[in-house]
Amino acid sequence: MNEAATTTLPTVDARIYPRGGLDVLSRDEVARLRDASSGGMHDLLRRCALAVLTSGSSSDDPRAAGELYPNFDIQVLQQDRGVRIDLLNAPAMAFVDGEIIRGVAELLFAVVRDLAYTAIELGERGNYDLDTSDGITSAVFGLLRNARILHPAEPNLVVCWGGHSIGRDEYVYTKQTGYELGLRGLDICTGCGPGAMKGPMKGATIAHAKQRKRVTRYIGITEPGIIAAESPNPIVNHLVIMPDIEKRLEAFVRIGHGIIVFPGGVGTAEEILYLLGILLREENRDLPFPLILTGPAIAAPYFEQIDQFIRLTLGDDAASRYEIVIGDGASVAKKMAHGIKKVREYRIAQKDSFFFNWALDVPLEFQKPFVPTHEAMAALDLHHGRKPHELAADLRRAFSGIVAGNVKEDGMRRIEAHGPFDIHGDPDMMRALDALLRAFVDQRRMKIAGEYKPCYRVLA
Amino acid sequence: MNEAATTTLPTVDARIYPRGGLDVLSRDEVARLRDASSGGMHDLLRRCALAVLTSGSSSDDPRAAGELYPNFDIQVLQQDRGVRIDLLNAPAMAFVDGEIIRGVAELLFAVVRDLAYTAIELGERGNYDLDTSDGITSAVFGLLRNARILHPAEPNLVVCWGGHSIGRDEYVYTKQTGYELGLRGLDICTGCGPGAMKGPMKGATIAHAKQRKRVTRYIGITEPGIIAAESPNPIVNHLVIMPDIEKRLEAFVRIGHGIIVFPGGVGTAEEILYLLGILLREENRDLPFPLILTGPAIAAPYFEQIDQFIRLTLGDDAASRYEIVIGDGASVAKKMAHGIKKVREYRIAQKDSFFFNWALDVPLEFQKPFVPTHEAMAALDLHHGRKPHELAADLRRAFSGIVAGNVKEDGMRRIEAHGPFDIHGDPDMMRALDALLRAFVDQRRMKIAGEYKPCYRVLA
Amino acid sequence: MNEAATTTLPTVDARIYPRGGLDVLSRDEVARLRDASSGGMHDLLRRCALAVLTSGSSSDDPRAAGELYPNFDIQVLQQDRGVRIDLLNAPAMAFVDGEIIRGVAELLFAVVRDLAYTAIELGERGNYDLDTSDGITSAVFGLLRNARILHPAEPNLVVCWGGHSIGRDEYVYTKQTGYELGLRGLDICTGCGPGAMKGPMKGATIAHAKQRKRVTRYIGITEPGIIAAESPNPIVNHLVIMPDIEKRLEAFVRIGHGIIVFPGGVGTAEEILYLLGILLREENRDLPFPLILTGPAIAAPYFEQIDQFIRLTLGDDAASRYEIVIGDGASVAKKMAHGIKKVREYRIAQKDSFFFNWALDVPLEFQKPFVPTHEAMAALDLHHGRKPHELAADLRRAFSGIVAGNVKEDGMRRIEAHGPFDIHGDPDMMRALDALLRAFVDQRRMKIAGEYKPCYRVLA
Amino acid sequence: MNEAATTTLPTVDARIYPRGGLDVLSRDEVARLRDASSGGMHDLLRRCALAVLTSGSSSDDPRAAGELYPNFDIQVLQQDRGVRIDLLNAPAMAFVDGEIIRGVAELLFAVVRDLAYTAIELGERGNYDLDTSDGITSAVFGLLRNARILHPAEPNLVVCWGGHSIGRDEYVYTKQTGYELGLRGLDICTGCGPGAMKGPMKGATIAHAKQRKRVTRYIGITEPGIIAAESPNPIVNHLVIMPDIEKRLEAFVRIGHGIIVFPGGVGTAEEILYLLGILLREENRDLPFPLILTGPAIAAPYFEQIDQFIRLTLGDDAASRYEIVIGDGASVAKKMAHGIKKVREYRIAQKDSFFFNWALDVPLEFQKPFVPTHEAMAALDLHHGRKPHELAADLRRAFSGIVAGNVKEDGMRRIEAHGPFDIHGDPDMMRALDALLRAFVDQRRMKIAGEYKPCYRVLA
Repeated sequence: MNEAATTTLPTVDARIYPRGGLDVLSRDEVARLRDASSGGMHDLLRRCALAVLTSGSSSDDPRAAGELYPNFDIQVLQQDRGVRIDLLNAPAMAFVDGEIIRGVAELLFAVVRDLAYTAIELGERGNYDLDTSDGITSAVFGLLRNARILHPAEPNLVVCWGGHSIGRDEYVYTKQTGYELGLRGLDICTGCGPGAMKGPMKGATIAHAKQRKRVTRYIGITEPGIIAAESPNPIVNHLVIMPDIEKRLEAFVRIGHGIIVFPGGVGTAEEILYLLGILLREENRDLPFPLILTGPAIAAPYFEQIDQFIRLTLGDDAASRYEIVIGDGASVAKKMAHGIKKVREYRIAQKDSFFFNWALDVPLEFQKPFVPTHEAMAALDLHHGRKPHELAADLRRAFSGIVAGNVKEDGMRRIEAHGPFDIHGDPDMMRALDALLRAFVDQRRMKIAGEYKPCYRVLA
Repeated sequence: MNEAATTTLPTVDARIYPRGGLDVLSRDEVARLRDASSGGMHDLLRRCALAVLTSGSSSDDPRAAGELYPNFDIQVLQQDRGVRIDLLNAPAMAFVDGEIIRGVAELLFAVVRDLAYTAIELGERGNYDLDTSDGITSAVFGLLRNARILHPAEPNLVVCWGGHSIGRDEYVYTKQTGYELGLRGLDICTGCGPGAMKGPMKGATIAHAKQRKRVTRYIGITEPGIIAAESPNPIVNHLVIMPDIEKRLEAFVRIGHGIIVFPGGVGTAEEILYLLGILLREENRDLPFPLILTGPAIAAPYFEQIDQFIRLTLGDDAASRYEIVIGDGASVAKKMAHGIKKVREYRIAQKDSFFFNWALDVPLEFQKPFVPTHEAMAALDLHHGRKPHELAADLRRAFSGIVAGNVKEDGMRRIEAHGPFDIHGDPDMMRALDALLRAFVDQRRMKIAGEYKPCYRVLA
Repeated sequence: MNEAATTTLPTVDARIYPRGGLDVLSRDEVARLRDASSGGMHDLLRRCALAVLTSGSSSDDPRAAGELYPNFDIQVLQQDRGVRIDLLNAPAMAFVDGEIIRGVAELLFAVVRDLAYTAIELGERGNYDLDTSDGITSAVFGLLRNARILHPAEPNLVVCWGGHSIGRDEYVYTKQTGYELGLRGLDICTGCGPGAMKGPMKGATIAHAKQRKRVTRYIGITEPGIIAAESPNPIVNHLVIMPDIEKRLEAFVRIGHGIIVFPGGVGTAEEILYLLGILLREENRDLPFPLILTGPAIAAPYFEQIDQFIRLTLGDDAASRYEIVIGDGASVAKKMAHGIKKVREYRIAQKDSFFFNWALDVPLEFQKPFVPTHEAMAALDLHHGRKPHELAADLRRAFSGIVAGNVKEDGMRRIEAHGPFDIHGDPDMMRALDALLRAFVDQRRMKIAGEYKPCYRVLA
Repeated sequence: MNEAATTTLPTVDARIYPRGGLDVLSRDEVARLRDASSGGMHDLLRRCALAVLTSGSSSDDPRAAGELYPNFDIQVLQQDRGVRIDLLNAPAMAFVDGEIIRGVAELLFAVVRDLAYTAIELGERGNYDLDTSDGITSAVFGLLRNARILHPAEPNLVVCWGGHSIGRDEYVYTKQTGYELGLRGLDICTGCGPGAMKGPMKGATIAHAKQRKRVTRYIGITEPGIIAAESPNPIVNHLVIMPDIEKRLEAFVRIGHGIIVFPGGVGTAEEILYLLGILLREENRDLPFPLILTGPAIAAPYFEQIDQFIRLTLGDDAASRYEIVIGDGASVAKKMAHGIKKVREYRIAQKDSFFFNWALDVPLEFQKPFVPTHEAMAALDLHHGRKPHELAADLRRAFSGIVAGNVKEDGMRRIEAHGPFDIHGDPDMMRALDALLRAFVDQRRMKIAGEYKPCYRVLA
């Protein structure tokens, strides 16, 4: 250990030789990977690698990993035999007696693998037409297949959504629910951070051990803007880094055989609106897609508010696509197992694959990245009478923009420079939106410095 | 579920077909197993099975499992195909949607397997001469082999001793230490109950997952008198029920490649004295046997007292066989890994097996069950000048008797009937013993109802 | 290599450390094994080991292995770690660049394992009552279980009987039939020598490879009197040495789910009579047991003679228990697969095990070794009117005696000393017997030096 | 079976669902695969599939598979779940009781996989620049990786070259040599047809079974022009179809860790010249590459002639790159094992991969397909004084052209139309060439109808 490298925390230098897909590359691929990782992709790679190397950190140090390990660097080097990864001043916590922890190394290879795939295959010389819906779906498929997430197996993957900062009661409930899912042989996929993204995996781990399940999948799907803030929890054994938030959302709904939503903040609300927007499309009307909103008794009001907001904006029809279960993880798991059985039957009848939900129609408007400028926000159309899935799409964008205006660097700077966003919408809808956001603040589901000041104005 | 069967807790009836050793039996063996399990062994079987079926129970219900499931019964039935186990009014918590949890079923088979082995092979028609030291060791070997605990593999088994009722800080420390052991690829063996018997396994589970260790061993060794009170924790994936406490202790020291002692009560003190008594024998002088006493900072006084008591009674020589480490789980794991490396080298040099410590000399006096009657207690000889290993043997018996006199049904009845035990010993030794016991009481390491009243008198 | 050790063939000295069951022995077991192997069992061990070490020899050297390797010796030595096998002047053909071929080593461990089991468990201190039918069956079970032949799996084991010296056409046919069996996922068990004992395994090997069958079983069951003459063919991957010919025959019928009989000599005739004698018992009347006699077109007369002999002696009822198929290996395999399906259904219905045919009634008269003295032969009762299964038992003994009188050292000496055996029987039966034997001689299925002179006289 | 479909041989219709790589395709890939297989690629696919479906046929029918199964057809169909392969009037020999043999199905998937890769990835929209040496090597790498031939493992792959029509003695010798290679843990790669391409695999199969080797590789590398004539032998468990003969040759030398040449005809001579041409390059001077020419005693003259020819044309230096071993398969295997050890050390020192010989310099002139027109043949320059590797390249082309002129349809038609090829060369070299070819004819290594008439004229 060269502890002198930083005044704060012990670090290690190491050379690592990848396995599992990164070990059989052509000379040309190695060269492109090396170039990409030392060029434009380098800073991103550095940040993601650091997140992985501090995975499972329970440090109370409020400073971000980047600050704690200022001298950390990563280099991907070419050898005829393949690639080599050099780590400089890496967190000592990822090592045991000088050897990198094997699971951490796997996550590290996943980072390099996915960033390289994005840089090379989704770049200019790549094969995907990212201006079409089919092209984007193909890119999502390609990335997931390259990450070895897709393989023919019985449907058993439950996606769990929910906040990273939830109360103790809520966290315990996510563990209990994950335990019940695990007892029934179900695997877990989450956004791979802490809180509601970790609890279900932890519960399932114990249950899988008790059921002597050999092959277990704890899939974490993240994206570059999130991974640094939400370091993968240590249970994740399959990590995928999608290039942006929209492709991450598409990955969730394409590979999950059912979705459970635990309490969360605005991000979770966004996810619910994304999924409902898709499920409300005529094309997806008959598609079975188990969707359960659940939490402990204390979270009941939270789901009531969400439910009311959805009924008001998207109608009761939208509410019929989900079920709310309070305080009964075993029942959630039973319902989910039953729902996935239906999914299985449907896919067999339709000759659809088990590992990728091709039949789900995801239109381009849900796939294109949304950048919340004042113009884009002003262009949203939040009025009754629109088709529910179109309204859902705009509502999702509204939430996205509000989150950005409140807490993301870009968004906050825009608000400072140009004042609050103008949003056009029907008054009742806008009031409901406002009430929902204030409730999130009250329940401490949104991190707000100082008093909450809305970053938007409502225009009818 | 036939919930009517008990007013209190839901139960299930089930038929189970064993695997893994119980599935290839001769007709004769099946018949003997059936006879034994419906005859003298039945009540024991019923109690042990119930302990396993409530494994991992976090119930706050103060009543014992036997009270909670009064109508529970188990029957072993013969079929030409093998044996069948019928469960009546079994705890519903061991089942998922009507199917028994696979790990629980494995533990259940282990119970039947070990009780049957003991009843058949160690019984009158059996092959072991239990009046000789070699015969007892052979029986221990036979039981462990039949339980598939012994197999040729690299030495990596750490036995962890310590109390079942320890403080939060101490429990967290056992988890951290187990995590550090697991990171280094070490497997864990404990007495299979809660507290210090569970923490190291739990920590190791997470570490093994991070290191992608496929074959993991969390061995729990128990005996009929203990299992009911200390239900196997849910992480145990190999359970062995030895016939009595002395054979259980011998199993620990024969299969463990090193031993870690966490804080505990009188039972833990007994274990330390048992092991030191053996290690102090001339025959075992050169045998490497890593032994570390460790706990968090808060436990430092505990180990100081133990250490002082040992130095006073057995001498500084005895203290040289162990090392005390405070508040540094990583260091404990490193030392243990290093010590096991030495064990490995020694066994290779001596052509001794890796899986059973044949070379360790365990004399008959440590193997014969001790029954703490007033006569037996009065016969103890706790004076300076005796050979340390003989004194250690009597000290162990003294602790055993005191525990019995304080908390075990048999012992308490004896005290009521005949007054306190008379113990003969040198005054300084007896004072030290007394001080140690009072400290345990103060630290709440002994469960005493009401005020602590010594159950013994010291006679010089 | 110390080629000087013998003038004839290269040899090797080696030390081997057993695995797979012989690696976890108690000290006591090791000592008993060492004693047995250096005592009465030593010569037997030496001969069997040599047979295994020359497995697959295609040498044209007419001398027996014992003559070719006169200085060969084997010793089983004790080490605390377990046993060690020392080979002196062992055939170099069992080694590659100084290392023993792994499969040969496994067969060698099997030899030690089975001879030790027989010496220890079936000896005086052992647990079996060999004077009762149940005791003998238990011993057969114990030996097979100890050899790891018994394990719960779908029924798929076809026993193939037939001669070790058969014509080219017949050998090719056994291969083709084995290929067809293998294509249908069936495993093979034979007497483990050459000819009809090797062909089916060879054919199945290719078919299993084409069907990508991972776990394949080519079980060879032999006995000490045969193994030296019929060295296990190199495809055998499970070898069992039963203590005598009767226990070997019982092993075949207890573990096989169906039996195919290829052309052979007197030994094969004995096997057919043994099996029919059992199947004709009232107790076994309803037991499904697929039995097919088959060979290429050239073997049709052979089976006609057998069929006629059986119909004449045991009646048409006996002939209804088998089917004769000529020149159609695919059809044989299909019929066998179908028959085994019936066996499976029957065992499930009867709750009988898949791996050992407990339900088959084998009476003591078929289990007790038969020694063909003049008295014993004269006591045979080959008359019409007896119960078919009793007659079959005596016919089997008659064949046994005649073989001995013709070719076995003991028997030939008896004939020389006391003249031909007197056999009592009905004239037509005795004529048929005579005709059958002469046909075997004509078809070169019996090895006779000089002209064939019957070693028996018929007395009505 | 619809036997009416052909008057000659039984056929089967079947639907097959691919596994192993063809089972996780994107919709777009499935569509492209379907289009390619119903378009230009269809006839090729049909021929290759038929070759695979008649793999291991020992039919004596002189007609080609195409004639025997005139109504056979194959279609690749799209399903959302993936692809489906429909077989019409397929040879019944590939099926057992209506189910396709699993190994045959795997080879069938390999055919579809490789033809699809070639059509899609090496086609116009593909990613490889096939005008450059690096581009061609990358394509070879891509095809092999896609076929899952490349993976990180210890170097152990022996390429065996030699004729498909060799004498009995020679065939037996290839089996014995394969057996010795297999005993030493070496895997086999051949051209996948009969004769010298089958014998080594067959011998290795038995040896691998005896050594209990679990993972075995019998790789067959073929190309569309050859597969129809040389149906894969049934032992091949990895099949690759390279697009042309030059890429097939490059595949051999890139993945093989050593090469053994058994007796063969002109094709084998071509292969030797190809390899020597590469090894004689300055760039490859220090590269270890074990190369052994071997056969039984009867083949000694053959290798003498080859050796003389090489020494005359390419010089003694060329002869120093190979070793000739006669009649000693064990020695060949030992030398090969030793040579591969050197290869291993070299690759580690050079940090080169174990699975692909990147360091071997293969220039464009050896990679570009050669079409033997009269112009191309007349342009060959077979004179002393040229650089050996250039001369080797032209000699290889000369052999190629002569083979074509003698036996290939295209070439024979050209000779009929325009008369014999003119070849420019030094007289001694041309005489040697002539003598070599006549010797092949005398030894029946070339199939010539009628008397041998040279298809070329020598011009000085």
